Amino acid sequence: MHNFNSGPSILPKEVFQQASEAVLNYNNSSLSILEIGHRTPMFESILHEAQSLVKELMALDNNKQVLFLHGGASTQFFQIPMNLLDEKAMAAYLDCGTWGTKAIKEAKLFGKVDVVASSKDRNYSYIPKDYQVPDNAVYFHYTTNNTIEGTQMHAIPETNVPLVADMSSDILSMSLDFNRFSLIYAGAQKNIGAAGVNIVIVDEAMLGKVSRPLPSMMDYREHIKNGSMLNTPPVFAVFVCMLTLRWLKAKGGIAGMEGINRKKAALVYDTLDSLPLFQAPVAKEDRSLMNVVFRIDDPVLEKEFQQICRDNNMYGFTGHRSVGGFRLSLYNALPYESVVAVTDLMKDFAKKKG
Amino acid sequence: MHNFNSGPSILPKEVFQQASEAVLNYNNSSLSILEIGHRTPMFESILHEAQSLVKELMALDNNKQVLFLHGGASTQFFQIPMNLLDEKAMAAYLDCGTWGTKAIKEAKLFGKVDVVASSKDRNYSYIPKDYQVPDNAVYFHYTTNNTIEGTQMHAIPETNVPLVADMSSDILSMSLDFNRFSLIYAGAQKNIGAAGVNIVIVDEAMLGKVSRPLPSMMDYREHIKNGSMLNTPPVFAVFVCMLTLRWLKAKGGIAGMEGINRKKAALVYDTLDSLPLFQAPVAKEDRSLMNVVFRIDDPVLEKEFQQICRDNNMYGFTGHRSVGGFRLSLYNALPYESVVAVTDLMKDFAKKKG
Repeated sequence: MHNFNSGPSILPKEVFQQASEAVLNYNNSSLSILEIGHRTPMFESILHEAQSLVKELMALDNNKQVLFLHGGASTQFFQIPMNLLDEKAMAAYLDCGTWGTKAIKEAKLFGKVDVVASSKDRNYSYIPKDYQVPDNAVYFHYTTNNTIEGTQMHAIPETNVPLVADMSSDILSMSLDFNRFSLIYAGAQKNIGAAGVNIVIVDEAMLGKVSRPLPSMMDYREHIKNGSMLNTPPVFAVFVCMLTLRWLKAKGGIAGMEGINRKKAALVYDTLDSLPLFQAPVAKEDRSLMNVVFRIDDPVLEKEFQQICRDNNMYGFTGHRSVGGFRLSLYNALPYESVVAVTDLMKDFAKKKG
Repeated sequence: MHNFNSGPSILPKEVFQQASEAVLNYNNSSLSILEIGHRTPMFESILHEAQSLVKELMALDNNKQVLFLHGGASTQFFQIPMNLLDEKAMAAYLDCGTWGTKAIKEAKLFGKVDVVASSKDRNYSYIPKDYQVPDNAVYFHYTTNNTIEGTQMHAIPETNVPLVADMSSDILSMSLDFNRFSLIYAGAQKNIGAAGVNIVIVDEAMLGKVSRPLPSMMDYREHIKNGSMLNTPPVFAVFVCMLTLRWLKAKGGIAGMEGINRKKAALVYDTLDSLPLFQAPVAKEDRSLMNVVFRIDDPVLEKEFQQICRDNNMYGFTGHRSVGGFRLSLYNALPYESVVAVTDLMKDFAKKKG
């Protein structure tokens, strides 16, 4: 199977193998990873290794705290303003797509929101570039990669306002100065692991500045104080992250991944650009390395090509239910061979159809 | 191994086997359960079967909604008052132990809390009985089973106030009229499945009555409207719940479990009562069928017996770090044989030291 699904998505074969074994017998303990206590050296070493690997792979400064929290990025949409944005304060948001829009909606429940720019005017097919982030913003929030729309921010915006980024669909896929961010968050189920856990990387200096009382489970400071074990963590999901992070390190870390990811994306985009049968709606300079979206104008041909993909063991290649068309997600664990396979199908199909 | 851990805890061997296989190849799909899309018939049928099994096993009325949410019971400690308790309204809480105390702390952030009774005076070693729940309470919250202190409420309190119960450590272990509750919640990692998901069973009539705006991810109505798929659910954790629920049904459902659970608990308590070397601090009528706590007064003997347990493949038998001593958790999946094994060790040890 070639799994192009946008999330939950393909993980390395070795990770599936190791996770499967651990469900039967974790590390020769005669216990399943599902039944071990979380406040034991067995799990503590998993959590600590996962945290250390994130720090190492992303070259994070010591003031950055790495938390593995329950929930997905959608939880962070409200947890971030709840922790950082006082009722009368203002946060700046960039509106680049479905997920950013949702983050904006939740932030408005907690304080003032200044949407500095939006690409809604052209169906989020580009990343806005000419905007000013007001100096009085508590933070500037943006989505680094838009999973649904297939756009990606290829550089960190120039601003002195603390940066908060949703990196759910491109974390660990390309090198960035991650220390430029005051808070990074990502649902695990794309480049980090299985669904059911959330990574939050936060600069402690951002915390403790809002006046509202915070529920313990929503308070980043409580999670930091408790070493990311305020309550029973999603043990298996954290374990799968740890395995995937180990794999990533062995494959040359983020730089190693970026090399392969650029090669994979180049092959798909070059194929699309060479075949007029397929339409790629995203502005070239904003194309995502992770999620390639395209269409075939003729609905009959579109259906026909979908069937060909299915017949050739392709999985998860359709666009988000809100936009339709095709979407190929090229996350870290997707082999280059899968990209060769699908682009070969595209070329064959275009040749046949003329 | 005999796994007496309090949570994450033992699950049926069949569940480990099936979960392990699914991590490699789910249902002959050639895909891992960790990489399948959640908005696919594959996952939808897992979620729907899990929801149906909960309804069937607990004999729930149609007005009860079954949600599988991110987080653990600690998330519900604040999510419940956030959804049900208006700022000027009052909720009644029973203070029977560590978890109830935490729930009370979180509720106070949202409205008025009337603690109708507490057993703190005697280290939570009993369940308070003579108390009145004020009629004007929006709901009455209690913990059905106190995992740390080893007490359990064996009947539903008499009150007309809507009942809200934390059933994390005894859900599905004994028959109750579950329809008497307006909201039931439970972290999965004891009797339902693996850590990383939360079951919430809620009567829709309770919802939409608070004036505060709710973040989408915290609003039960949003989860109901979206069929418990407001965002990417913790796919694997839900799958393990489904497998465990299937196993439970095949074993005779809750009534079948209750029979075995009573037998297991009787054997441990009878052993404790017959051996003066061990002290069981809990009031007899309030003893938990799920978590049996006891001590050995002499710390040297206590250490010695701990070593004997370890030498005999016992795991997770020590008391919560806040109380020490021993704790044997006898959840549904723990075989009777494990209880025989540990009580045999207790008898031998008492004889030797006798």
